[in-house]
Amino acid sequence: MSNASLLILPGDGIGPEVMTEVRKIIDWYGAKRDLTFDVSEDLVGGAAYDKHGTPLHDDTMAKAQEVDAVLLGAVGGPKYDNLDFSVKPERGLLRLRKEMDLFANLRPAQCFDALADFSSLKKEVVAGLDIMIVRELTSGIYFGEPRGIIEEGNERVGINTQRYTESEIDRVARSAFELARRRNNKVCSMEKANVMESGILWREVVQKVHDEDYPDVELSHMYADAGAMQLCRWPKQFDVIVTDNLFGDLLSDAAAMLTGSLGMLPSASLGLPMANGRPKALYEPVHGSAPDIAGQGKANPIACILSFAMALRYSFDQGDEATRLENAIETVLADGARTADLMGPEGGTPMSTSEMGDAIVAAL
Amino acid sequence: MSNASLLILPGDGIGPEVMTEVRKIIDWYGAKRDLTFDVSEDLVGGAAYDKHGTPLHDDTMAKAQEVDAVLLGAVGGPKYDNLDFSVKPERGLLRLRKEMDLFANLRPAQCFDALADFSSLKKEVVAGLDIMIVRELTSGIYFGEPRGIIEEGNERVGINTQRYTESEIDRVARSAFELARRRNNKVCSMEKANVMESGILWREVVQKVHDEDYPDVELSHMYADAGAMQLCRWPKQFDVIVTDNLFGDLLSDAAAMLTGSLGMLPSASLGLPMANGRPKALYEPVHGSAPDIAGQGKANPIACILSFAMALRYSFDQGDEATRLENAIETVLADGARTADLMGPEGGTPMSTSEMGDAIVAAL
Ligand SMILES: CC(C)[C@H](C(=O)O)[C@@H](O)C(=O)O
Ligand SMILES: CC(C)[C@H](C(=O)O)[C@@H](O)C(=O)O
Repeated sequence: MSNASLLILPGDGIGPEVMTEVRKIIDWYGAKRDLTFDVSEDLVGGAAYDKHGTPLHDDTMAKAQEVDAVLLGAVGGPKYDNLDFSVKPERGLLRLRKEMDLFANLRPAQCFDALADFSSLKKEVVAGLDIMIVRELTSGIYFGEPRGIIEEGNERVGINTQRYTESEIDRVARSAFELARRRNNKVCSMEKANVMESGILWREVVQKVHDEDYPDVELSHMYADAGAMQLCRWPKQFDVIVTDNLFGDLLSDAAAMLTGSLGMLPSASLGLPMANGRPKALYEPVHGSAPDIAGQGKANPIACILSFAMALRYSFDQGDEATRLENAIETVLADGARTADLMGPEGGTPMSTSEMGDAIVAAL
Repeated sequence: MSNASLLILPGDGIGPEVMTEVRKIIDWYGAKRDLTFDVSEDLVGGAAYDKHGTPLHDDTMAKAQEVDAVLLGAVGGPKYDNLDFSVKPERGLLRLRKEMDLFANLRPAQCFDALADFSSLKKEVVAGLDIMIVRELTSGIYFGEPRGIIEEGNERVGINTQRYTESEIDRVARSAFELARRRNNKVCSMEKANVMESGILWREVVQKVHDEDYPDVELSHMYADAGAMQLCRWPKQFDVIVTDNLFGDLLSDAAAMLTGSLGMLPSASLGLPMANGRPKALYEPVHGSAPDIAGQGKANPIACILSFAMALRYSFDQGDEATRLENAIETVLADGARTADLMGPEGGTPMSTSEMGDAIVAAL
C-alpha cells in the first residue's frame, strides 16, 4: 500500500498503554501482510498541555491534516479538572474534530458473543446486537456561537447555541444512508422536533435526502427521549441511527454500555475526501482515559485495536484485513482471554494489557 | 381539607380514559376519607386545538394559575403531526410549565417488585430500584432565545439556545438537596461541563448551593453521557439526580424504561409557593398519549393514579394518604392484577383500564 501515513496520539491515562498494543498489530501487518504505514507520534490532551501549555500544539494540528489517518487513545484526567475551559484536554480533541471537519462519527454498538453475559441487560435483549450510531461531530451545541458565561443584571448566565445548517445535516444524513445500504438498509433519525426548531430542520432535511437519493433505505424518525427509551428496551430494532452531536454523545454512550462491551468499542470520525481519495479520518476507542487504572497494565486494548481495524476498513480500503483482525479478537475472546474489565464474578486471573495484545497478534 | 382545588386536563390519546380512573380515586377520598376536592375539567393539547385552534386556551391557562394543582393526562398524536410548530399539542404543555414557572420536575424511577421481571435489565440490576430525577423544567434549550429557522446565505439554519441563569440553577439545586434529605441524602448533578459553558456554570452553582446550605448531603458531579451509561449499568448507585431540561428529558425516559414500569411512573412539576403556601403544581404520568391503543380500554391507569398520589403528598400535605394509595397499588399488583402492558409472555387475559381502576379502589 503506497504512502499510508498514520499519526498516533496516545493522549492521557490508559491511552499510551493501549496504543503500545496497537503498535504490535501495526508491526504484524507490516511484517506479515506487507501493509506498511508511515507512523509518527505526538501529544494531545493533558500530555500536550503539560509540555506545551495547550492541549493540541499547532504543529500537531498541521500534521493531523496531512496524514491519512489519526489514531487517538484518550484524553483527560483529574489532574486537569481545574484548568481553564480553553485549555482542558477535551479542547484538543474537539479542535481535531472541528478543524479536520470530521462530521460523521461512526460508533458501532456491538455485543460480542463471548461477552453477552456482561451486559446489565438480559442476554436475549443484547446477544447478537449490531447497530451503528452515526453522530454529527462538527457542529450543533458543541461549537455554536454565541457561547460563554456572561453577566446580565446582577447574575451570570451560561449560554450555548445549537445551530445546524441544511448542508451540515445533509452530509451526515448521506453518510448514514450509505452505511445503511451496506448493512440492513434501515435508518432511524433522532431529534426533538417537538420542542426544538433545529430538530424540525433536522427531520425535514433527513427526509428530503432520503426521498431524493435513498428511497430504497427504510427511514424512520424518533424523538431522542423515546430513542433513549427504545435503546434500553429493545436495541435490536435499530440498524443505523443518525443524530446530532449532543444527542449522539448520550445515546452512543448508553448504547455502548448496553452491549456490556464498553472496553471493546471503537469509533471512526470521518470527513471529506482528500486529494488522494481517502477521507480525513480519526479513529479512537469509545472509552475514556480511565485514570484510576492508568499505568497498571489493567486496561483492555481491544477498543483501540478495533479502532485500527476501522482505519483499515474506512481509510485504507482493506476491509478483508479489518475482518481478519476482528475475527482474531473474536477468537481470543472465545478462547477465554479476559482483561480485568471482562472478569466475571467467578474470578480468575486477568490478562494484562500486553498479554491481550500478544494473544491477538498470535491469533492473527 | 379546605379549598383544595384541582384542574383536570385529560388531553389526548389515552389521557381521557386513564383520567376517568383517577376520578374514581378522587371520589373515594371524598366519600371515605373526607378529603374533598373542588374539581374542574378542561382541554389541553390536540383536544384544545380541535375546539379552539390553540393547544391551550387563555382561559384554561388562567384557571391553571388559580387552582392548587393541575392533573394532566397526555398530549399529542399523529393527527397533529403536521400542524405548525406554534400550535402543536406539546406547546400547550410547555406553556403550562413555563407560565406556571414549574421549575422542578420530579420523576421517580421506581421498580415495582411485582414487575421486576419486565425490565430489559437483569433482575438484580433493577429490583428495589428507587431513584428520583429532578429535571429543570422552565429554562434551558426548551425556551432559550434566539430560536427558529432562519435564512443565511443560500440555506436555512435551525437555531436553539441553551441558557441558564445562576438563580435558575440555584433554585432547582435546592429542590434536589431538600428531596435528598428526605431520602438517602445523595445528589448527583449531571451536565456537560467539559464541552458547554452552561454546564460549567451549572456545576459551579450546584456546588456553591451545596457548600453553603447543604454540606450534609453527599454531592457528586457526572458528565451527562457518563450518567446515561451509569444509569444503564448500575442505576442503584444513584439516589437523587439533578440535571437540566434537555438532559433530564432523555435521562429520565431512559431511567423510566429501565424500571420496566413505564406505564407506572408518575411525575410532579413544582413551582414557587402560592399565597396559601401550596406550591404551583402540575402532575402527569411519564408515559405519552399512546394513540395506537387509545379508546380501547387497554391503557394502564396506574401512572396517572400515582401522579394523583404525588399531588396528595406535595400539594396537599397528605403524605399518609399518598402512601395508602401507593400501597393499594402494590397490593393489586402483588395479587396479579395486570393491564395489557404488564402481561408477560405466559399470556392470560389482561384487565381493562376500568377494571384496574376498580381493583385499586377496592384495595383502598
Ligand atoms: C471527551 C468529550 C469531549 C467527548 C464528547 O463529549 O464528545 C466524549 O464524551 C466523546 O463522546 O467522544
Ligand atoms: C411532550 C414533550 C414536549 C415532553 C418534553 O420534551 O419535555 C415530554 O417528552 C416530557 O418529557 O414531558
